[in-house]
Amino acid sequence: MRFTSETSCDGVSEQLFTLGEIPGVLWTPDGAAGTRPLVFMGHGGGQHKKAPGIVARARRFVAECGFAVVAVDVPGHGDRPKDEEYNRIATENQARADAGEDLAPLIAGFQALVARQTVPEWQAVLDAVQQAEHVGAGPVGYWGVSLGCGLGVPFVAAEPRVRAAVLGLGGAQASAEAAARITVPVEFLLQWDDERMPRAQGLALFDALASAEKTLHANPGKHGEIPAFELDSTLRFFARHLG
Amino acid sequence: MRFTSETSCDGVSEQLFTLGEIPGVLWTPDGAAGTRPLVFMGHGGGQHKKAPGIVARARRFVAECGFAVVAVDVPGHGDRPKDEEYNRIATENQARADAGEDLAPLIAGFQALVARQTVPEWQAVLDAVQQAEHVGAGPVGYWGVSLGCGLGVPFVAAEPRVRAAVLGLGGAQASAEAAARITVPVEFLLQWDDERMPRAQGLALFDALASAEKTLHANPGKHGEIPAFELDSTLRFFARHLG
Repeated sequence: MRFTSETSCDGVSEQLFTLGEIPGVLWTPDGAAGTRPLVFMGHGGGQHKKAPGIVARARRFVAECGFAVVAVDVPGHGDRPKDEEYNRIATENQARADAGEDLAPLIAGFQALVARQTVPEWQAVLDAVQQAEHVGAGPVGYWGVSLGCGLGVPFVAAEPRVRAAVLGLGGAQASAEAAARITVPVEFLLQWDDERMPRAQGLALFDALASAEKTLHANPGKHGEIPAFELDSTLRFFARHLG
Repeated sequence: MRFTSETSCDGVSEQLFTLGEIPGVLWTPDGAAGTRPLVFMGHGGGQHKKAPGIVARARRFVAECGFAVVAVDVPGHGDRPKDEEYNRIATENQARADAGEDLAPLIAGFQALVARQTVPEWQAVLDAVQQAEHVGAGPVGYWGVSLGCGLGVPFVAAEPRVRAAVLGLGGAQASAEAAARITVPVEFLLQWDDERMPRAQGLALFDALASAEKTLHANPGKHGEIPAFELDSTLRFFARHLG
């Protein structure tokens, strides 16, 4: 892992890095030393590691809980080159949807394909980041909604270091099988009027989680309209399970 | 309103009272003076104003938020005499259920009947309690699950002093119509494996609420197994909307 820049703002240090071809960002408290909980964040489709919704949450996890937070660009997103194969499949899927085919299973299949790449990538990032002296091998949390849920469910299912996860805006069609292998506490966010993910799909994904402690938080509003008070709840959830 | 006893424990004062035929209990901080938020609590079926789940919550609302809390016995419960008409209907309903009839609509009809008595009773209690110098006419919250939801939904719908409500373990069959007249913020508790209330009924009641801010908290477990961390959430919800 190679750190390429470091800046600081309001007590939160931000280090850009690359691990092989993967560009990432690590946030830690200024002057942090020693092991601390780490939250891995997965961004949404079309977004990137420093999308506003990622940065705003990451800064609060660091400033209010003293955690480290890491996010990386998903293939084809942010600072990564376009991926010809993924682009070809996405274009084909769009054409099939335009021809009347149901888009949901196509997206589910596409996310499963991308997850076969991102799960080992994210595990390698976890290995590398936990080598840093100011992160260390503490408890790990995962936060990701929408694409960050579609890629996060197989990651959380595969990665025993993850002790708690905030997931949401995802559906059973893409993720039920892997969700049935998740046993850590989960806070699951569902938007009641989600225009992209049918309500029944979200409820079925929550149902599929094998976790003894799982809590569904459903709020009115569309896909992008998770209310601000849910971030307060997320902070307390991670503090409870990682702190 | 006539106060009949006063005791104190760990900073929380408990005053028993009667208002006409209605026995009630008022909890306030020791030495409280002046206006404060008030939480009205509705107990579950077969329970009473000092059931353990009511007392435990009431003491935390008082001790941690400085609120006043009031609860009264529902007709036929606690220190109230048996109600011959309600008993007769309950016995008839049980016989119809034993004969194979669906119990849910019978319970819904029964709760609607009781609510015609409890809504004006509870409004009178609110009038009286807010006359007390150490309560006053501050913002009012409502907390009630199960029967406390079945009776609480029409109460919250009818009572403009209620600014926020925690409801749950109730169903649309009994309460959807009144729920559609509720516009204040609601935190709605649903038990994912509720053996008494079908999941779809609970989801439909949440859906029926007209509140712009409403949040569904669903957790695994049976009717009586709301997890302890939901009380922390309830405290923050009331603190946010009444504090």
